[in-house]
Amino acid sequence: MSLPPPSPHRVQIEHLVRRAIYQRLGQTPPQSAQAPNPLLVNISARHCHLTPQAVEALFGKGATLTPMKWLYQKDQFAAKEMVTLIGPRSRVISNLRILGPCRDLNQVELALTDAIALGFDIPVRPSGNIKGTPGCMLMGPNGFFEMPDGVIRAAPHVHMHPDDAAFYGVKQGDYMRMRVGGPCAVTFDRMLVRVSPDFKLEVHIDTDEGNACVFGPDTPVELLK
Amino acid sequence: MSLPPPSPHRVQIEHLVRRAIYQRLGQTPPQSAQAPNPLLVNISARHCHLTPQAVEALFGKGATLTPMKWLYQKDQFAAKEMVTLIGPRSRVISNLRILGPCRDLNQVELALTDAIALGFDIPVRPSGNIKGTPGCMLMGPNGFFEMPDGVIRAAPHVHMHPDDAAFYGVKQGDYMRMRVGGPCAVTFDRMLVRVSPDFKLEVHIDTDEGNACVFGPDTPVELLK
Repeated sequence: MSLPPPSPHRVQIEHLVRRAIYQRLGQTPPQSAQAPNPLLVNISARHCHLTPQAVEALFGKGATLTPMKWLYQKDQFAAKEMVTLIGPRSRVISNLRILGPCRDLNQVELALTDAIALGFDIPVRPSGNIKGTPGCMLMGPNGFFEMPDGVIRAAPHVHMHPDDAAFYGVKQGDYMRMRVGGPCAVTFDRMLVRVSPDFKLEVHIDTDEGNACVFGPDTPVELLK
Repeated sequence: MSLPPPSPHRVQIEHLVRRAIYQRLGQTPPQSAQAPNPLLVNISARHCHLTPQAVEALFGKGATLTPMKWLYQKDQFAAKEMVTLIGPRSRVISNLRILGPCRDLNQVELALTDAIALGFDIPVRPSGNIKGTPGCMLMGPNGFFEMPDGVIRAAPHVHMHPDDAAFYGVKQGDYMRMRVGGPCAVTFDRMLVRVSPDFKLEVHIDTDEGNACVFGPDTPVELLK
């Protein structure tokens, strides 16, 4: 793992500066600056999570994932390694990114537009809840790996620390709303709440959702109970 | 034009039956049944509108569009004819459907996912407002046709008759909200209102928007001022 550790994200620095300024001015900060942590929204492009066994089948005996880019959540990374996804009509998606580290189950997360293009009929599921979902074939440089299930569209969700959950007044498994501004303003009315002491406040929506509201770095966004 | 004329849409028949039942029972119908017309939501897949000159350039001298399927709006149809769209990085979309009848301007409407895949940086525009938008090359069986501009992402919009506008209390150019239920419930906060005596009440969203909220025939939907 030669990749240097991640530096603080822009939203974290901005959040600290904003709070410091309000404090210095002796003013009450707005709601968003009172939050214990800044709100980061990331668009998840299609990707997969794999077991160590799947990585070995696809990339060779002893192969492991190589971090290419650290993600916002602790220890999570986009790997250098990618696979080819083969759908039910033999249509393929090349260069499907693997996210690491390895997990104890294999899961492919597609946007519905991807799924329709490939011919998958996939359900909306929270990550890890793959029972009864379609399977697929993956192809790597060392061979094929068949997934009997695990192809899902991830439910739009927000990762949060218990401090964030307390601030917003929500708990694990609740749903929140996220209001996105701009020229194609959209309110996502069912954002699944996932709480863990290991999590940082971060919303994950997929490319369909991000493109539907033309989400960009300057798009105004608000998380609502 | 050998295609038989369109029969009433399912939502129109349901609307009439619903109103008749409430009347027979002597009960006050709910808000949606009081509306002068039923609400139909259609997902617009990528498509184009062409001038007669463009059709001749692409399909040959004297060529015209052949209706394949009538659309909900009066006299509008999906044509049998399709073109190939060539994007800025020479990536292509084959089988881009032409909608008829011909118009007095050429316009390609893509979802943002399509645009990104092809390398277009397109703005969100109301139909017909194409000044300063990217152009593209179209290819047909008879040759190429270059559009200097006209590639847009159509703003999500609702067509309505003046009767509908009166009922909802909106006018041409206003924005409304559309609340979509289901497992990926979404509220579209900026639905452009387009009013004409020729229009029937119909919402058009694109495939990104439709896929973001997993829109299907049984998805509950509500139009709000």
